[in-house]
Amino acid sequence: MPQDQPLEVFVSGRVKYAVLVIGLVAMAAMTVPGLRAPWITAALWVCLGYFAAEMALKTRQSSHFGRKPPYLGSAEFWWDVLGVVPVPLALIAGLPPEKAWLLASLWILKLATVVPGLSLLGRIIHLEARPLASVFVIFLIVLLLASVAVHLAEGPGQPEKFGTLPLALWWAVTTLTTTGYGDAVPETFVGRSVAGLVMICGLGVFGLWTGILATGFANEHRRREFIRTYELVTRVPFLRTLDAAGVIELTRMLRRQDLAERSVVVRRGRAGDCMFFIASGEVEVQVEPKPIRLAAGSFFGEFALLDGAPRTATVVTTRPTTLLTLDVTDFHAFTAQHPDLARELEAEAARRRAPVKDAGHIVNDADAAQ
Amino acid sequence: MPQDQPLEVFVSGRVKYAVLVIGLVAMAAMTVPGLRAPWITAALWVCLGYFAAEMALKTRQSSHFGRKPPYLGSAEFWWDVLGVVPVPLALIAGLPPEKAWLLASLWILKLATVVPGLSLLGRIIHLEARPLASVFVIFLIVLLLASVAVHLAEGPGQPEKFGTLPLALWWAVTTLTTTGYGDAVPETFVGRSVAGLVMICGLGVFGLWTGILATGFANEHRRREFIRTYELVTRVPFLRTLDAAGVIELTRMLRRQDLAERSVVVRRGRAGDCMFFIASGEVEVQVEPKPIRLAAGSFFGEFALLDGAPRTATVVTTRPTTLLTLDVTDFHAFTAQHPDLARELEAEAARRRAPVKDAGHIVNDADAAQ
Amino acid sequence: MPQDQPLEVFVSGRVKYAVLVIGLVAMAAMTVPGLRAPWITAALWVCLGYFAAEMALKTRQSSHFGRKPPYLGSAEFWWDVLGVVPVPLALIAGLPPEKAWLLASLWILKLATVVPGLSLLGRIIHLEARPLASVFVIFLIVLLLASVAVHLAEGPGQPEKFGTLPLALWWAVTTLTTTGYGDAVPETFVGRSVAGLVMICGLGVFGLWTGILATGFANEHRRREFIRTYELVTRVPFLRTLDAAGVIELTRMLRRQDLAERSVVVRRGRAGDCMFFIASGEVEVQVEPKPIRLAAGSFFGEFALLDGAPRTATVVTTRPTTLLTLDVTDFHAFTAQHPDLARELEAEAARRRAPVKDAGHIVNDADAAQ
Amino acid sequence: MPQDQPLEVFVSGRVKYAVLVIGLVAMAAMTVPGLRAPWITAALWVCLGYFAAEMALKTRQSSHFGRKPPYLGSAEFWWDVLGVVPVPLALIAGLPPEKAWLLASLWILKLATVVPGLSLLGRIIHLEARPLASVFVIFLIVLLLASVAVHLAEGPGQPEKFGTLPLALWWAVTTLTTTGYGDAVPETFVGRSVAGLVMICGLGVFGLWTGILATGFANEHRRREFIRTYELVTRVPFLRTLDAAGVIELTRMLRRQDLAERSVVVRRGRAGDCMFFIASGEVEVQVEPKPIRLAAGSFFGEFALLDGAPRTATVVTTRPTTLLTLDVTDFHAFTAQHPDLARELEAEAARRRAPVKDAGHIVNDADAAQ
Repeated sequence: MPQDQPLEVFVSGRVKYAVLVIGLVAMAAMTVPGLRAPWITAALWVCLGYFAAEMALKTRQSSHFGRKPPYLGSAEFWWDVLGVVPVPLALIAGLPPEKAWLLASLWILKLATVVPGLSLLGRIIHLEARPLASVFVIFLIVLLLASVAVHLAEGPGQPEKFGTLPLALWWAVTTLTTTGYGDAVPETFVGRSVAGLVMICGLGVFGLWTGILATGFANEHRRREFIRTYELVTRVPFLRTLDAAGVIELTRMLRRQDLAERSVVVRRGRAGDCMFFIASGEVEVQVEPKPIRLAAGSFFGEFALLDGAPRTATVVTTRPTTLLTLDVTDFHAFTAQHPDLARELEAEAARRRAPVKDAGHIVNDADAAQ
Repeated sequence: MPQDQPLEVFVSGRVKYAVLVIGLVAMAAMTVPGLRAPWITAALWVCLGYFAAEMALKTRQSSHFGRKPPYLGSAEFWWDVLGVVPVPLALIAGLPPEKAWLLASLWILKLATVVPGLSLLGRIIHLEARPLASVFVIFLIVLLLASVAVHLAEGPGQPEKFGTLPLALWWAVTTLTTTGYGDAVPETFVGRSVAGLVMICGLGVFGLWTGILATGFANEHRRREFIRTYELVTRVPFLRTLDAAGVIELTRMLRRQDLAERSVVVRRGRAGDCMFFIASGEVEVQVEPKPIRLAAGSFFGEFALLDGAPRTATVVTTRPTTLLTLDVTDFHAFTAQHPDLARELEAEAARRRAPVKDAGHIVNDADAAQ
Repeated sequence: MPQDQPLEVFVSGRVKYAVLVIGLVAMAAMTVPGLRAPWITAALWVCLGYFAAEMALKTRQSSHFGRKPPYLGSAEFWWDVLGVVPVPLALIAGLPPEKAWLLASLWILKLATVVPGLSLLGRIIHLEARPLASVFVIFLIVLLLASVAVHLAEGPGQPEKFGTLPLALWWAVTTLTTTGYGDAVPETFVGRSVAGLVMICGLGVFGLWTGILATGFANEHRRREFIRTYELVTRVPFLRTLDAAGVIELTRMLRRQDLAERSVVVRRGRAGDCMFFIASGEVEVQVEPKPIRLAAGSFFGEFALLDGAPRTATVVTTRPTTLLTLDVTDFHAFTAQHPDLARELEAEAARRRAPVKDAGHIVNDADAAQ
Repeated sequence: MPQDQPLEVFVSGRVKYAVLVIGLVAMAAMTVPGLRAPWITAALWVCLGYFAAEMALKTRQSSHFGRKPPYLGSAEFWWDVLGVVPVPLALIAGLPPEKAWLLASLWILKLATVVPGLSLLGRIIHLEARPLASVFVIFLIVLLLASVAVHLAEGPGQPEKFGTLPLALWWAVTTLTTTGYGDAVPETFVGRSVAGLVMICGLGVFGLWTGILATGFANEHRRREFIRTYELVTRVPFLRTLDAAGVIELTRMLRRQDLAERSVVVRRGRAGDCMFFIASGEVEVQVEPKPIRLAAGSFFGEFALLDGAPRTATVVTTRPTTLLTLDVTDFHAFTAQHPDLARELEAEAARRRAPVKDAGHIVNDADAAQ
């Protein structure tokens, strides 16, 4: 889709973020009487136009290439509709502009589709729904009983602050979450004792909440990392000789590393404590007489593990690249249990050492795949 | 017990929650002079009547079917009594209605019997009682010493706020829990230094508290999940050939999934990264010419793991169903160590492929049990 | 030391706690002009007398029995001195009584010697000192830079609240810890932006702090539990046939349970999902014609694991008892790898089933040791 | 570099900290009109002079010894420049002294280079950047939508506090972080309901944040400890007979312990539950007739594990020493799987017992290396 690339750039990434930030700042400015100016309104209309254009482009692309799932009717589509339609509707309905443009705050929901980790968080909340609900029930019980107690204790003395249960509930929420506005403060001994207990319960509830989310996050994170790394390991030809159990074991040892274009992976002369497999992307090994490029599936950096020698060449990525890193300790542990792989690796290293004397620890894709 | 089902519905689930919410809102409204109206009182009496009727029904059912443990005298019974008896007693004792009905706040305790995870939280607090007590002692020590210090530093300057130790204790509680009402704020250099230390200690105490609860929760959660999953694994006939160690190992790999009626488990044409065992409930595989139903003990979705092919049929639950999910990576790791099971699974898959050409990856209970 | 037992009771446990609570409440009352009464002073003197008597008793006992380490000069001794000496000294030095008695707040430090987990917390803080110090340095850097920024932004507008750096630091501490008294609130755009950043940093600092303590606690807790359980496992004669690796493995599976006197361990007729080893203490199996007592080193409850039958007798502790619990799943996993132990256990079970037909799953110490 | 040692002492450690503290206190005093005195300015100039001298010394040393990486142009160099240059520049530019000296607050950044754990924290934030960004996006979405809702609900009633969106955003930040200054408090039912939701979201956001940081910290900490310990294990000659897998396994069991000079490692007569390997430094075993010194690579304390006897000699470090500690339980688990090592260890112990009868469990470096 080369003819669409300029449009792609236009509707994605930095331009979109910039439009979003400008739009939201302009919306905030609209609510300040002193700042409300014609050019603020103009900026808002430009942002709205941008989002409408983005929708149109996405719709056209979707129909053009027939890719699935289709854009129209997808979740993304409805998010986009929510950004474009409400403000004009509100203006047509006769709302004053400074109120109508407040609906532009829905634009911030576009962030949710850009950030990758939201589905992870959603999944954790889904998986841990039961214990989270339990903690929430404890929260509600403490809230209501504390409100009743403080209403009874403080109501007679401060009727305008604790005289009704809803007022007491408001106090209880601000106290149990340890926000503590200080607009309503108990003054009797009983009221303050209840308040102290509520604060301590607040810490406890919060601790449980954090504990549940921390546990859920740790479990889900570990699982996702494993699945993603496993998939990448299966793409490295050199590791195809491993049996299923060996792949699992190696997957547990490898660490995924996403690098931008032109990142330095290893620097000549530095000590080396790991080797690298290229899962996707490409790197350039800066050796004389001319640099060598390694594609996905290759590996490099194994000399440092076999000999303990410093890095013999600087390696730089030429495009966004995903590497799998194997630490020296894991390397020894793994090769101790898989002597075949160790022998093969040393054979490769020996072969490469001979002809590319200066090039350092390199194997090109073709070699590795044999 | 078909003749009791309407009553069952009446006293459980959504109706009960609705009554609870209405009752509590009405109770809160009673305390607001402007809202206090005859129909609010009527609503409260209806809710009370509902809870009394629920008690009567449970008592009758309990005696009818002679199930054990009996309802009368159980913890649940006493919770229910606490919801029904206190308000009338208070009214008889002559309390004004807006005070007497505050006892209806005890209704919220009914939530505690509905939510499943409370026993888990109780157990964590029981198991971690020692370290939690230690943190509480640190809390008390910091609280008292800080109160004394601030009482000495601020007492002369602000006698109405720090002039007595109880007043200083109140300040220390609000500060150590980082609630910070701001009703009493130290003004001297010494007082503010102590306050700063107290706040930092507050963060530390809170961190320890959270750490203890998080650790306890992670341990207990892992344990419970394992026991529940283990029990379900033993119900799948296909896995009966495994030895005890194999069952343990597989249990660690499986993830339990509770699905509501009519949930889509897999969708035709999507990529498949796991297979499923039905622990309880039933699913419908939507194949031509007519759908196939799979009962508890069956498994499905293994084709995607053996071939890497996309799902060949959509599978939907027909009632609340518990599935055990085995990821592709765990599948390979496990079958690598249990070649017998792998062979059996492939044999099953081959057999099913032949006659149910279109039906996708299905095995019915009878097949699996052979 | 039977002749000393009444004294032991006198200086330990509940009496001591009661004296401590009374003393601290009386001390607080001393600072309230309206409550200051001769009998309050009397109560304080009685408490002081109690602590002095306790010291005297401990000193006598220590010299009497020549136990090591000696009490005099120990840490405990100095804590006790700190509770007895300062108040009289302050009174002699001429301080007014309401000030002098504030030193009685040192009595709360006695709690630190009673609570068992404080050394654990101390150890965690020691082990994680480096990362905790790093977080503290971040805290200090954010604190100072934020103070300077807010001092510059808000100083001209609110000189009495942000006019000097110490005032700005006070604001920064209350904000970074999210206490938020509200006594000093920035009002300019720059000041509020800095404040927002400081609050978010506060959450981050707190999160790191909690993460470090949670990790440290989890590691140390696991380690301590393992060591304590290992020691108990080596006391069970039945397990002496296991090799070192087996003991380690079993230790990882067992859960320690400390029970008070007369606690019900299992109840007749309930489903059984674990078996028990008695590490210390004694239990009574309530069988006909007369109950059987099992001492430390015995085990019980294994019938439920071998047969899946419900518990055949109720078991109650006769004194404070420590049990090691083995879950059904761990039981199967372990016996699968140690068939000898499984055979021995079944042999024991068969032998016991014959003569003690009604007694349930019991083995007495003598049997187990064979 | 003996001739440089006095300078080394001068520019490092305690002197530097003292200068830093004095400088920062003086800077704070400068901003208080009552404290501003000529000698405060003098103190600040002395501190500035000290930091300039430190830079000069470091530059000279760097060129003198030609060590790499060079100081000039390094990160450390630029931090140091930031401490020396800005204040004079500001004074030359004509700022009043009390403003110019505020730039001395940059001195606190020197702490960042001294504290060892900051790179760890940086790495965690780097590794967990995606989920942290997700939580931050949730934070922003809740912040903006809550601001708009509260602006609409409270704006008409409290225009000076919620009348514009920036004002509402300020309220939302203080509430979502649970800081709760209380300078702006919603008063309508809708506003307070939104506020309650925001506070609960605040706890949730905070919990996720903490969970992510805790998980990241635990993973990275475990990894670093393993790598550092592995490196130390390879330095102990006695363990060279182990294969790679054995070294990995042992590394997981050992705990690193950094001790200052003259620390007591074991005390004669105490029970022993671990043995020690000296990774670096030196210890002195206090035996008759004269103490024995053990260098790096030696081990001691194994008698207590082999015999269960109490420690037979006190061992003290003679310089900063790093020990690797092996617990009794891990010792048994490891020797059960590596009988060769166990035999060798016992042989060593027997040999040492004979000639150094009184010296306790000692082996010198030469013995161990054989």
